[in-house]
Amino acid sequence: MKKHIYFFGKDMTEGDRSMKNILGGKGANLAEMTRIGIPVPPGFTISTEVCQEYYQNQNRIPQSLIEEINRNIRKLEELMNRRFGNPEKPLLLSVRSGAARSMPGMMDTVLNLGINPEVVDGLSRLSGNRRFALDVYRRFMQMFGDVVMGIDHELYEKALQKIKDENGYRLDTELTENDLQTLIDRYLKIYQAETHSDFPVDPMEQLLRAIEAVLASWNNPRAVKYRELNDIRGLIGTAVNIQTMVYGNLGESSGTGVAFTRNPATGEDVLYGEYLMNAQGEDVVAGIRTPMPIEELKTNSEMIYNQLQDIRTKLEEHYREMQDLEFTIQEGTLYILQTRDGKRTAYAAVTIAVDMVNQGLISREEALMRIDAKSLNQLLLPVFDESEEKKARVLTTGLPASPGAASGKIMFTAEDAENYILKQKENPAIQPEPVIMVRIETSPEDIGGMAVSSGILTARGGMTSHAAVVARGMGICCIAGAGDVRVDYHAKQMHIGSSILNEGDWISLNGTLGTVYAGRISSRPPELTGAFQKLMEWADEYRRLKIRTNADTPRDTAIAVNFGAEGIGLCRTEHMFFEGERVVSFRRLILVAERVKQLRAEMEKTINASERLKLENKLKVPLAQYNQALAELLPVQRSDFISIFKALKGRPATIRTLDPPLHEFLPKELDGQKEMSHAMDIPLGEIQEMVESLSEANPMLGHRGCRLGITYPEVTAMQVRAIIEAGLEVHAQDIKVNPEIMIPLVGHKQELKLQRDLTEKTIRDICLERKLDRVPFNILIGTMIEVPRAALTANEIAEHADFFSFGTNDLTQMGCGFSRDDAGRFLNDYVKLGIYEYDPFQVLDQDGIGLLVRLAVEKGRKEKPSLKIGICGEHGGEPRSIQFCHRTGLDYVSCSPFRVPVARLAAAQAAIKENVNE
Amino acid sequence: MKKHIYFFGKDMTEGDRSMKNILGGKGANLAEMTRIGIPVPPGFTISTEVCQEYYQNQNRIPQSLIEEINRNIRKLEELMNRRFGNPEKPLLLSVRSGAARSMPGMMDTVLNLGINPEVVDGLSRLSGNRRFALDVYRRFMQMFGDVVMGIDHELYEKALQKIKDENGYRLDTELTENDLQTLIDRYLKIYQAETHSDFPVDPMEQLLRAIEAVLASWNNPRAVKYRELNDIRGLIGTAVNIQTMVYGNLGESSGTGVAFTRNPATGEDVLYGEYLMNAQGEDVVAGIRTPMPIEELKTNSEMIYNQLQDIRTKLEEHYREMQDLEFTIQEGTLYILQTRDGKRTAYAAVTIAVDMVNQGLISREEALMRIDAKSLNQLLLPVFDESEEKKARVLTTGLPASPGAASGKIMFTAEDAENYILKQKENPAIQPEPVIMVRIETSPEDIGGMAVSSGILTARGGMTSHAAVVARGMGICCIAGAGDVRVDYHAKQMHIGSSILNEGDWISLNGTLGTVYAGRISSRPPELTGAFQKLMEWADEYRRLKIRTNADTPRDTAIAVNFGAEGIGLCRTEHMFFEGERVVSFRRLILVAERVKQLRAEMEKTINASERLKLENKLKVPLAQYNQALAELLPVQRSDFISIFKALKGRPATIRTLDPPLHEFLPKELDGQKEMSHAMDIPLGEIQEMVESLSEANPMLGHRGCRLGITYPEVTAMQVRAIIEAGLEVHAQDIKVNPEIMIPLVGHKQELKLQRDLTEKTIRDICLERKLDRVPFNILIGTMIEVPRAALTANEIAEHADFFSFGTNDLTQMGCGFSRDDAGRFLNDYVKLGIYEYDPFQVLDQDGIGLLVRLAVEKGRKEKPSLKIGICGEHGGEPRSIQFCHRTGLDYVSCSPFRVPVARLAAAQAAIKENVNE
Repeated sequence: MKKHIYFFGKDMTEGDRSMKNILGGKGANLAEMTRIGIPVPPGFTISTEVCQEYYQNQNRIPQSLIEEINRNIRKLEELMNRRFGNPEKPLLLSVRSGAARSMPGMMDTVLNLGINPEVVDGLSRLSGNRRFALDVYRRFMQMFGDVVMGIDHELYEKALQKIKDENGYRLDTELTENDLQTLIDRYLKIYQAETHSDFPVDPMEQLLRAIEAVLASWNNPRAVKYRELNDIRGLIGTAVNIQTMVYGNLGESSGTGVAFTRNPATGEDVLYGEYLMNAQGEDVVAGIRTPMPIEELKTNSEMIYNQLQDIRTKLEEHYREMQDLEFTIQEGTLYILQTRDGKRTAYAAVTIAVDMVNQGLISREEALMRIDAKSLNQLLLPVFDESEEKKARVLTTGLPASPGAASGKIMFTAEDAENYILKQKENPAIQPEPVIMVRIETSPEDIGGMAVSSGILTARGGMTSHAAVVARGMGICCIAGAGDVRVDYHAKQMHIGSSILNEGDWISLNGTLGTVYAGRISSRPPELTGAFQKLMEWADEYRRLKIRTNADTPRDTAIAVNFGAEGIGLCRTEHMFFEGERVVSFRRLILVAERVKQLRAEMEKTINASERLKLENKLKVPLAQYNQALAELLPVQRSDFISIFKALKGRPATIRTLDPPLHEFLPKELDGQKEMSHAMDIPLGEIQEMVESLSEANPMLGHRGCRLGITYPEVTAMQVRAIIEAGLEVHAQDIKVNPEIMIPLVGHKQELKLQRDLTEKTIRDICLERKLDRVPFNILIGTMIEVPRAALTANEIAEHADFFSFGTNDLTQMGCGFSRDDAGRFLNDYVKLGIYEYDPFQVLDQDGIGLLVRLAVEKGRKEKPSLKIGICGEHGGEPRSIQFCHRTGLDYVSCSPFRVPVARLAAAQAAIKENVNE
Repeated sequence: MKKHIYFFGKDMTEGDRSMKNILGGKGANLAEMTRIGIPVPPGFTISTEVCQEYYQNQNRIPQSLIEEINRNIRKLEELMNRRFGNPEKPLLLSVRSGAARSMPGMMDTVLNLGINPEVVDGLSRLSGNRRFALDVYRRFMQMFGDVVMGIDHELYEKALQKIKDENGYRLDTELTENDLQTLIDRYLKIYQAETHSDFPVDPMEQLLRAIEAVLASWNNPRAVKYRELNDIRGLIGTAVNIQTMVYGNLGESSGTGVAFTRNPATGEDVLYGEYLMNAQGEDVVAGIRTPMPIEELKTNSEMIYNQLQDIRTKLEEHYREMQDLEFTIQEGTLYILQTRDGKRTAYAAVTIAVDMVNQGLISREEALMRIDAKSLNQLLLPVFDESEEKKARVLTTGLPASPGAASGKIMFTAEDAENYILKQKENPAIQPEPVIMVRIETSPEDIGGMAVSSGILTARGGMTSHAAVVARGMGICCIAGAGDVRVDYHAKQMHIGSSILNEGDWISLNGTLGTVYAGRISSRPPELTGAFQKLMEWADEYRRLKIRTNADTPRDTAIAVNFGAEGIGLCRTEHMFFEGERVVSFRRLILVAERVKQLRAEMEKTINASERLKLENKLKVPLAQYNQALAELLPVQRSDFISIFKALKGRPATIRTLDPPLHEFLPKELDGQKEMSHAMDIPLGEIQEMVESLSEANPMLGHRGCRLGITYPEVTAMQVRAIIEAGLEVHAQDIKVNPEIMIPLVGHKQELKLQRDLTEKTIRDICLERKLDRVPFNILIGTMIEVPRAALTANEIAEHADFFSFGTNDLTQMGCGFSRDDAGRFLNDYVKLGIYEYDPFQVLDQDGIGLLVRLAVEKGRKEKPSLKIGICGEHGGEPRSIQFCHRTGLDYVSCSPFRVPVARLAAAQAAIKENVNE
């Protein structure tokens, strides 16, 4: 028969840390700690396979398991010299969930199992503390009712509040033995009323039902949601840890706490944590009482503190990772209840990894592999503009629970926050406004709202409260335990001192300092320094892929170069047309270009010579206007390119010619059309007609990309001229330039050939005008590979291309056949149903679109071995996709400026992985 | 030096019929006829290479050519014993264009070159007919002015009309010598006024300028348009034929005519043609005088008639093809001026090909290869419902110039016809209404209008008039020379007897009989009989591809089976939802499906148990409505399938589950929304909200195809149930059924797997309900391959598919990245610029999309050798694409019912070509 249970306890430990998959992280580490001599209350772990069986077995515990549980209880009783359910020497147990990957607070826990009125009496005698025994029973009843029986926990809390109110108490600790006895009686009534049955007194019944509750909690909606949000996949279920209870609430020499072997916010190499004396563990985690910093423990009990320090060192040397511990002090004796790799901010992760290399604990490769590349984004969250921050009005300060800086509009519930963000997403025209969620404290139900918030502020809770832990995990700025804040959910208001802030008011949080400001503060990009810089240097040593950036402005270019970008992989010239006065020139161009095109087409069809002459005359005015608009745009484009070339200082710049359909430049709403009519002195009707005539059934598959350049070759020529003239000007200032002209949306080699010919002709024209033999810098001409047909015929296209750049956004849209704008209606279902493992717009679909990429690389390089190949879709900043690019032999990836460090690390990780696999 | 000129004349002929590319069709055949002893006036041909040089040489004739012309003129003078420009023995010449492929009337011709006042005198003496000589000069002046100098021909016609009016003449032949002299003087004035120069008298100048005019006419807009419309490509230019003039207008023993060696309308094996005595060739072709049937010639001159019959036999035996001749009788002597393969109706083509096989002239393979598969469409034009036609009011009759039957709205100009059709195309919602173009006579300028018309009616002109020839070429029904018809272009009216018909009125033409009816007559599909049936039988012997049809109704199915379809390749079930009452049920389904989906999604996100309960209650009503709507649709779908299975009698039927996005079923216009609101008793606002919420940015890439089946599995299940239940019912009636269930828009194997699992489960459910072990007929489950990703991962998809069917419409849209609805803005330019050789929606893009098809076939068959593979995009009925399907090893093509014979022939041609190449 298969082994379902693994015991842990002095010299009898069956598991170890390698068995996470079947013992869960918690169970495996309890066993491991026991093995290396850390004081752990003994117990046993029911394997995750049982959870799988439970679900396969119509949610029933297999009979054989019950016998195995019984055998292990006996073992435990012997080891502890106590008996489960025996009033004389009662053994009390905790039942905790624990999957192979940590999901804090998501699944169920039941403490103090094995207690009943008789055991209360025995426990009173043994501890000499009847109040304690009654409190244990009361807590157990409440937890069992809530967790196992699903009774609304508010019923218990109301009863507790009521007895406090009746006696005028403020704290639970003021309750007397009699109060507790009354409360127990009231709890019993609640239980009976809600379940129509008596509260179970049989310890074995308590245990089995608690185990079932833990198993069932694996698939509760919030656990499922958590796994979804945190991308946790492939686990078979949770293990169940049954462990001897120890008590931190046995008086002032008892206590409980959590600790990190290093600072999880900064990475600093010190013991870090919080504790509460005379409290049970749940009191700390739930954030209900604000705990003390761990350094205070030195004053409180130096011995325990030193013991913790020793354990810290032992664990770090053993695990070679920063650990997150839970401990309980029972009447002066320290017990470790849990250890696991500590969650940390990305900042801390980087600091710890670099420190551990310096301390000889791990290698550089290990350090690089240990950082979640995606998480580096967090280090690149903007920081507040210092001068503005100095001038801002400080409302209060709280604990710096998760670093970063955020301004946003106040929302008081997760639902409000989610709805607010959702509403904005539905209307892409409006400038998006971030949300700061303000709560008294957060609970697992708030996860959805936290995920969409830019910052979180709580009135209660410490550095390890729910809000703090989750915010750090998500990389969201958080200030916790800001005690001055009084929240009135009903009025949707908060009071801080004399200030009243309403829903929708702006506040700003500096999560690194813990400062809360009134109003909005501008932010600026951060710098790469210290450990982060070191890590990036190591990454650069390992990676083979070059990293470029997608940038359209000198500002973005400078930011990206600062983050290590080695050039621009995508400069979208159309963004340059949207700004200020230019849009007027560009709209004029659109209006007349269409007219010119129509007249030219008419002329082509006209046989009659006098008709042709008439048309030629008709063409004169619009043609002049067309050329005029082009002439207006040329200098502004040129000056844009000049600034960008200067910012790049010789690094290559891939500049894409006009891409979006022309109707995107025209206002869709009446107000905008009226404004345009006024600004351009053109009748409204004419503008509306143009908007109508340019509108498309499927703009994604419409008149855009090089198709524009082919029907309006003058626009391409103007853009090429702007690039070359800018290059010449910058080159004359002794700054190197390295432009790469990129033709978008090519599907057929002839398209590229026509645009290339036009480009080369324009360059020759400029040389003739300026009496140059040739342009004195290198110019590449290449294309996006973003239409499936282009990938399929990459060999033919390579004939006319110096480089390829994969536009994987469009390649995904066309290759998978779904538009990003519309896929929302089904793509979530698709990911949920496992059709696509990840949203293919987030993570490159390697099995499908990846085939097109591989095919194009292969065919392109076969035709032209020197072909330079990169990627400039958003996948270029996504670590899994970057690994794919590395494996596929691309030369570079290009991503948004803030993703450049992510890409540097991911590229290094890809190279290291490859070496490992070789 | 390169040879530019090829002489033809007794024993001195330099060219032959194999030299079409450089001599043009006309020149090559003049040489060939001379070689085989047919009486041809001698002359010489300037090669097409000269035309190419002319365009390369800034539209100038090379000097060397002039010398070569001079040498050949000398040769001709010797052979004819006449001298060019010599009044004593004048040699007059014609200059005619002639490309490698015939373009009747598209390029320029100048007759009677070498005449001037002195030559007129000489010609008068020689012919003893001064009036004739003056008429020759008058004609030459008019033609030269119009064709060479571009003078508006109306100026000449007005002058001609004026002199007739002054003298009260009706016919040109009434003009006296004096009148002609006056007219010549007036023509000279017109020439001087328009060109500010004197009319050229030097014969060599006349000749060179005429040659230039012919060369220039190669690229005149109407010639370019003709090549475009007739898909004539790859020619380098026109040849120029300079030939000794012969005269059909030398009195009553002279004449001119055109003849076909077989009837070009019916294919009947008789000499067929028309002639006019005392006339020049242009008089016949232009359709100005109505000529006599060729049989009359027997009475007129039996010798000439018999000579023509001999020539007919000689030419057919020599060319093994039906020939189209031009002849002139000069004072009792017959000359053949041209022969070429005769244009014919598709009906005639089939008859001739089959007859020629029976006569031992050609082989079956040749017969099959000789028919343009596309042209068979013409044989499948509907014919009038006989009972309706009997009752219809006959307006008049004319010549049955091109067979077929058409009803349509009267338009009097090409432009009106084009605009009317264009306007309709822009609004796909309205039921399209065909056009009948009515003209006094047509001219090459009318080609665009003729191409969009369903029928053509002319008041003047014979069976070989411009209207007749072009209509037959285009396969458009035409009645010519309907003399009762009086057209008033100005009033946009026509009078037939006492009837007045206006623009926009309906008329009907029976082009096979020549009958014109008032009003509209219903039509029905034709039958395959006689030669056509025989040809199809031969095709079936050769072809390897199976031919299926795209049909959604029992009626279409029956038509297609009648045309030889071997099954249904695509049955679009959504068309079934649009009819009558069903659309109400389906719209109800859409409205509640969305609500059900929303509530289910909300439930999934809700953690709180009581909230869930609330949602469950909320869900009850819409869920009941959803099921109700499905229950309403099930029986109607079932009965549709029953009729289709019965019509197929055991032939396979590929039935596609719901494909289009749901918003297509909702009315977009306010009126329709109001109607829907009224019919369904739902507030208008709610309907508008639904329309709004379902609208998509790129519907082509939106929530459609199997994506619907995945989010609304109940709909797929209902459709599968309808198919299987229908199959069981038909099977119980001892009729075989062979359903193939096809899942659309699959891009990922998981999509197909989910829909297949659902389909199989539904089938099992039906078996359980009916206590069947299994369904008693074979069911295949397969998928469309229409998303590029599906083609790329065809091996994975084949795991779950019994068959593939290429949806090449969507595959083209997604693979090339352009939407059919929007590509109009650039695709014409693309074809014109040669980026794509053909519109890829018309002819499969073999180099690009074809790669995807080949890849999918290869990968699919590798995974599953038994995989059945077909194509059901519109390319399935296009001959070039069918050849590709054959070469790629597909099992079948599926096309619209009326294209089935086209496909049968094209499939045979593909197989024959393959054998030839082997």
